[in-house]
Amino acid sequence: MTIEELSYSLDTFYLLISAALVMWMAAGFSMLEAGLVRSKNTTEILVKNILLYAIACTCYLLIGYRLMYGSPDVTDFAPSADFFFQMVFVATAMSIVSGAVAERMKLLSFLIFCIVLTSFIYPIQGSWSWGEGFLDQAGFVDFAGSGIVHMAGASAALAGVLLLGPRKGKYGKDGEINAIPGANMPLATLGTFILWMGWFGFNGGSQLQLSGTDNADAIALVFVNTNAAAACGALAAFVIVRLVWQKADLTMILNGALAGLVAITAEPSTPTPGIACLIGLGAGLLVVLSIVVLDRLRLDDPVGAISVHGVVGLYGLLLVPVTSSDATVLNQLYGAGTIFAWVFGLSLVAWFLLKITLGIRISEDDEYQGSDISDCGVEAYPEFVTQKTS
Amino acid sequence: MTIEELSYSLDTFYLLISAALVMWMAAGFSMLEAGLVRSKNTTEILVKNILLYAIACTCYLLIGYRLMYGSPDVTDFAPSADFFFQMVFVATAMSIVSGAVAERMKLLSFLIFCIVLTSFIYPIQGSWSWGEGFLDQAGFVDFAGSGIVHMAGASAALAGVLLLGPRKGKYGKDGEINAIPGANMPLATLGTFILWMGWFGFNGGSQLQLSGTDNADAIALVFVNTNAAAACGALAAFVIVRLVWQKADLTMILNGALAGLVAITAEPSTPTPGIACLIGLGAGLLVVLSIVVLDRLRLDDPVGAISVHGVVGLYGLLLVPVTSSDATVLNQLYGAGTIFAWVFGLSLVAWFLLKITLGIRISEDDEYQGSDISDCGVEAYPEFVTQKTS
Amino acid sequence: MTIEELSYSLDTFYLLISAALVMWMAAGFSMLEAGLVRSKNTTEILVKNILLYAIACTCYLLIGYRLMYGSPDVTDFAPSADFFFQMVFVATAMSIVSGAVAERMKLLSFLIFCIVLTSFIYPIQGSWSWGEGFLDQAGFVDFAGSGIVHMAGASAALAGVLLLGPRKGKYGKDGEINAIPGANMPLATLGTFILWMGWFGFNGGSQLQLSGTDNADAIALVFVNTNAAAACGALAAFVIVRLVWQKADLTMILNGALAGLVAITAEPSTPTPGIACLIGLGAGLLVVLSIVVLDRLRLDDPVGAISVHGVVGLYGLLLVPVTSSDATVLNQLYGAGTIFAWVFGLSLVAWFLLKITLGIRISEDDEYQGSDISDCGVEAYPEFVTQKTS
Repeated sequence: MTIEELSYSLDTFYLLISAALVMWMAAGFSMLEAGLVRSKNTTEILVKNILLYAIACTCYLLIGYRLMYGSPDVTDFAPSADFFFQMVFVATAMSIVSGAVAERMKLLSFLIFCIVLTSFIYPIQGSWSWGEGFLDQAGFVDFAGSGIVHMAGASAALAGVLLLGPRKGKYGKDGEINAIPGANMPLATLGTFILWMGWFGFNGGSQLQLSGTDNADAIALVFVNTNAAAACGALAAFVIVRLVWQKADLTMILNGALAGLVAITAEPSTPTPGIACLIGLGAGLLVVLSIVVLDRLRLDDPVGAISVHGVVGLYGLLLVPVTSSDATVLNQLYGAGTIFAWVFGLSLVAWFLLKITLGIRISEDDEYQGSDISDCGVEAYPEFVTQKTS
Repeated sequence: MTIEELSYSLDTFYLLISAALVMWMAAGFSMLEAGLVRSKNTTEILVKNILLYAIACTCYLLIGYRLMYGSPDVTDFAPSADFFFQMVFVATAMSIVSGAVAERMKLLSFLIFCIVLTSFIYPIQGSWSWGEGFLDQAGFVDFAGSGIVHMAGASAALAGVLLLGPRKGKYGKDGEINAIPGANMPLATLGTFILWMGWFGFNGGSQLQLSGTDNADAIALVFVNTNAAAACGALAAFVIVRLVWQKADLTMILNGALAGLVAITAEPSTPTPGIACLIGLGAGLLVVLSIVVLDRLRLDDPVGAISVHGVVGLYGLLLVPVTSSDATVLNQLYGAGTIFAWVFGLSLVAWFLLKITLGIRISEDDEYQGSDISDCGVEAYPEFVTQKTS
Repeated sequence: MTIEELSYSLDTFYLLISAALVMWMAAGFSMLEAGLVRSKNTTEILVKNILLYAIACTCYLLIGYRLMYGSPDVTDFAPSADFFFQMVFVATAMSIVSGAVAERMKLLSFLIFCIVLTSFIYPIQGSWSWGEGFLDQAGFVDFAGSGIVHMAGASAALAGVLLLGPRKGKYGKDGEINAIPGANMPLATLGTFILWMGWFGFNGGSQLQLSGTDNADAIALVFVNTNAAAACGALAAFVIVRLVWQKADLTMILNGALAGLVAITAEPSTPTPGIACLIGLGAGLLVVLSIVVLDRLRLDDPVGAISVHGVVGLYGLLLVPVTSSDATVLNQLYGAGTIFAWVFGLSLVAWFLLKITLGIRISEDDEYQGSDISDCGVEAYPEFVTQKTS
């Protein structure tokens, strides 16, 4: 046993555990979304989440990884570990979409879009930065994917939401906005905690190497900053909703925590913990504002995914120059604009082609009855007597 | 600090983390089974799951480990870590039983059977292969336990189901098969994700050593293959149920993912990821077929455990020779047959003795009211108004 | 790469993963408490749990850590990793409080108390032992915090419960004690499993160093003993409730497992696994007894937190001398008494000041309607028809 071999083993293990934590985020998104939709659409969102993870993994294995990274170099850790770590990131991007289009999107069209996004749209875009392409060379910095993963996912979601329209009953004729509460708050909270935990793998693993004191110090700081931003995001969202609406709205607090996580993801290795707190505070305020504004714009996003991952993802990218001398605001804008234009544009085309062929929206009747019956044939809570909302 | 010491520490940590992930599978089985039974039997299945884990750990500590491995050799990692890793596997085997006999088995008889299985039946069988006994010497290959753990658990379950009979109302007089939907689909999905995550410890840890580039490469490949098989298992199950019944039946998709995991467990270190996908696809198809066939045979298995762990476990064992030159179909059949004969035979005796003494089936009245009231005195969801099914 | 650097990296990673598991316990407490309260107070307990974690992390970052450890020494692992590990322990202490005061405590007062406990009361107390202060020098031994974390949290909770009084309807005029069942048993069970898993990080990480065979052996033994005590705690609680009340009361079994975990936490590195089993058995019996006695004393603790973490925490401290020659019963009593006097005393003052200013108890009407509506404006299960209890 040489020290190089041992270092290779340690770095491989570090990547694999990080990746397992990111895989676990698929469960987090599932629970979050299952908690935030109505009971009549719960089985369907679960089906979408487990299948999107399965499709993302398979498409990235067969097609996406090579598009993004070409033939991988010789590494200081097992090549399969690198692949596994990159693969679970694709699933995260797609998970963001499922929440935004929930409660009205046809299952088959959703799955076909999933194939397109995870085989082509995401990996080609990823090759420009993490694959050492032109965005990387232009000086665009995105440590763990505020833009490359989160804003990309939100861009695809936004395109879908635009073509799909809001849920029936969400917006009234006279401009009123109707709240459609999620059916299961403990599930949504569990999902948020799972995502929070998984994010230690997401950001911590993105250092890509643990061996060496510098790497170890960096990873430890990433853990602390990731946690600090999430905590302060939750606190900021709580304070604002409490002051404005006098209520501690749980879903806003959860989204505040997630916003803190998304924001710090662009660069968790250079801020001090104090600055990470400030980044999180801003993210928590911004996400509440964004959710309110998008609702005014009648962009119906049942779980707030476009705000959490898109708006806050951009915010995270633009803050990188504050703590990292490698980045400039201009380069960050260039990167963000490029990612958005590519993912949003191609997604719009893909959703449009699906709309004029298979259709992307379930029938009015199915929407009223809930997609669980029509698409899945299985109710999520068949024994519980429910009062149908809207 | 020498490099040998550091390697010892790293390998110990790797085993402990792997084992913690396998321990976490106990939560996965609990949630999966709690989601797939009716609400009136939910507390009881939770009680069974937490107690079976407690009993399995305790009996294996006091009796089973020594029966399976004798006095352990000096190892290159902490002996307690090895014990801990082996111990959590026993609990997995017993978790399989609880699902299959759910909703009608007496609690006390179940717990007594648990003592017998985890103290004697499982460890003696395990000694023949992993304990370097005659099956090992005969060339039987089972990397992480498709047969030794999963098929063994399913064999014990099958014996119990045969003596127990189906739930009231499951099969009609005129041959009709009545679906009895589970009460909580998000829980079942959460359970599946937990099992999927825990399986990285189950299969990844079974390499038993991380130090050295070969070991690290092997473990990374095991992670990739485990995930690929699960993903393709879910996809195959989805495609088949969608084509045949026009519905995306969530429980079948979950069982498809689990089937992929069980199948790859026999040998996750030799297939390429592409072949792992094919193994998973076959497993997903097979498990749907098996669930339908067992239902026709009136073998009532509320969660599909015998199909997922037994039928697909055998399938996994028989596929090992495709990618591993260490195995032959004949040796695999010999090992599978031996394990089945031993576990099924002794379990049948044990269940039979329990049946003629304590009884194994709850009273008709308790079955109608639900075992939560009669056995546990605590309802799972006391405030939710439920519509009793069957 | 030198061997010292690699050891530094490994130890950092070990602490970070341990800490991530302890962070995960925040989800465990959330689910446990959300499952054990009534549905009308479920959103509120979720809000409290996510905010207490956020507050604890932020206050400990800004104030608490320096109070507890001063300027940290140069370590053999990343300083941020040490901070992160210590930080998540504070959140655990505060999580204990939220359960005991559930269903009747005002949200704002709870959060203000959280600031006080996590910024000052806990860290100053912690400095006396883990910060190498006078309790450490006096020979007080508390490996992972049976007293410093668990009994401390329970002491703060007891002070709150005394000033808060029981929930309406819990105790009748004629001395009768009314059971108020929790609304969601699968959640409570999930929470327990999460805590069980997280405890491997809590106890296993408290060795603080993995490198070296002695450290690795110790950590592996800690894992085994932690698990053994939990398993035997669950079994003992089951046996006693089954014998006395003829019912397998799930909540008592869950508390038995948690009691085993709390008890072994004072010293998991010196007992043999057999002795760990005995410690767990005693904890399981004691917790059932304690819950019954506290109920007779009309100390209303909806989740049994004072018994699990306080009474059993003390029991764990007093058992350390049985297996560790470093400890004496007198020193353990001295440490326990000091911690209790400080935390209980100051907490009583803090709660009292809150009571005479903001008030600590929600209005009778809000208590009847549930705090979800009044404090959060969001019901936990808005669609499920519920039958209000008490």
